[in-house]
Amino acid sequence: MSASISLQSDVSVGYLGPPGTFSHQASMKRFGDSLAYVPYPKIEDVIAAAAKEEITYGVVPIENSTFGAVVQTLDAFVDQPRVRIRAEVYLPVTQSLLSRYQLSAIRKVYSHPQAFGQSRQWLDQNLPNASRIEVSSTAKAAELAAAETYTAAVSSEVCAAMYHLDVVAKDITSAKDNTTRFFVLGQSSDLPTGDDKSLLMFTVDHRLPGALCSALDVFAKYKINQTAINSRPSRQRQWHYMFFVEIVGHELDDNVARALEDIKSYCLDLVVLGSYPRQSY
Amino acid sequence: MSASISLQSDVSVGYLGPPGTFSHQASMKRFGDSLAYVPYPKIEDVIAAAAKEEITYGVVPIENSTFGAVVQTLDAFVDQPRVRIRAEVYLPVTQSLLSRYQLSAIRKVYSHPQAFGQSRQWLDQNLPNASRIEVSSTAKAAELAAAETYTAAVSSEVCAAMYHLDVVAKDITSAKDNTTRFFVLGQSSDLPTGDDKSLLMFTVDHRLPGALCSALDVFAKYKINQTAINSRPSRQRQWHYMFFVEIVGHELDDNVARALEDIKSYCLDLVVLGSYPRQSY
Repeated sequence: MSASISLQSDVSVGYLGPPGTFSHQASMKRFGDSLAYVPYPKIEDVIAAAAKEEITYGVVPIENSTFGAVVQTLDAFVDQPRVRIRAEVYLPVTQSLLSRYQLSAIRKVYSHPQAFGQSRQWLDQNLPNASRIEVSSTAKAAELAAAETYTAAVSSEVCAAMYHLDVVAKDITSAKDNTTRFFVLGQSSDLPTGDDKSLLMFTVDHRLPGALCSALDVFAKYKINQTAINSRPSRQRQWHYMFFVEIVGHELDDNVARALEDIKSYCLDLVVLGSYPRQSY
Repeated sequence: MSASISLQSDVSVGYLGPPGTFSHQASMKRFGDSLAYVPYPKIEDVIAAAAKEEITYGVVPIENSTFGAVVQTLDAFVDQPRVRIRAEVYLPVTQSLLSRYQLSAIRKVYSHPQAFGQSRQWLDQNLPNASRIEVSSTAKAAELAAAETYTAAVSSEVCAAMYHLDVVAKDITSAKDNTTRFFVLGQSSDLPTGDDKSLLMFTVDHRLPGALCSALDVFAKYKINQTAINSRPSRQRQWHYMFFVEIVGHELDDNVARALEDIKSYCLDLVVLGSYPRQSY
């Protein structure tokens, strides 16, 4: 994937903007600085742009080691089932409190909901009376904190320099090995490498009791390990779920291909969102 | 459960406050208006109070039919594994835009993250430029909107009357059958009724590949249907999960008791958070 990229001059990478977000940092980590980067205002927009080939690649967060799955990304996959995951990228994430003011003067804090989740404990203890304002990204938060009086942002140190803010408190996340996993999206997946993972998305027939169990049982039969499982409302009917199961293996691997064939007896709307080389973190 | 309640005069019910929240409305639906109601500032506080017997019952949201699991509740169970679920309550939830101003004058909207999630589409279309401010509850949002100029709250109609606000736009949630499920918490579960559900919480040994699959397979063996599955970071190590599996059956039912015994070979820290009569919605 990266070899073919370096030969192309018209490769573009979309990410959740503005510049300086962790999505931007993860994109730079994966692709370097010689490509065209395109910021989008929302995760859904990045995924839609990748599905429609407006961009060559899209980079979106999928889960954080402290705060869990990024539900906006999972929900956007339901609307864009034709997008394909090409790779995963792990980025250590350190949130800091950025401001032009000292701690005691701060009345308002901007950040992304995930970053608030990761730093909730520190904020409860150190800024219990400041209101927390949810914005679309940690970089957007820094941009706003730079423009308003008595405000701060929970954001990355990269953004302190970018938006001329001071680091009032460094590393305020509760887990010290806080890492976010990102997906690189495109229109197809690469061939098997021998050590891949795949993300599947499906619903089960609500009239068949035990259908989820039967579906998961297929993986056991083919000795396929599951590395993550998440459920989201299917939006087809109440209390009906879209399941996201990440497995070890590539969709073209023999055992995975056979399992996917079998599992169709129990699952509806089965989509392989992609197969991608397993990265170490 | 309700029969014994009516005979006691010192029964208290804790909920996510302030008065007027959907948690408060769900509590009133279940327990009526003759008990002592105690508002708490955070979901974690309600669960801790129920675990420590500061209150007889605690009422917390567990999932919304549009926006999915309430992760704060799941995460709080990890910290309070001794609390017990006694009942479930379904409450139809209608979010409206409340304000003292007309739509074109509104610059700022307060709400709870879940309510923002449920009304995101309407807000994107009708108030794309108003900043969204995350607060601890929809009732708190109404309280703030009543006190500040050019602000609104995404909240319930109950709160319009309570905080002297107008209903600027009625029912702005994207799904028209939007319902939230609540748990009633206490220190023990009731006996089997013949139609119960149970919520289990466990991790799996990360050194045993396929352990999650083997654990779920036990339910298939005993023909136990799973109604929901969620995972959250375990906070024990990176990319290690706490699984929440809701099954049909009571922990004292024969097949469930045998399954729980078997499943211990694959699960660590297995906790039955409670067994409770299945409610229709």
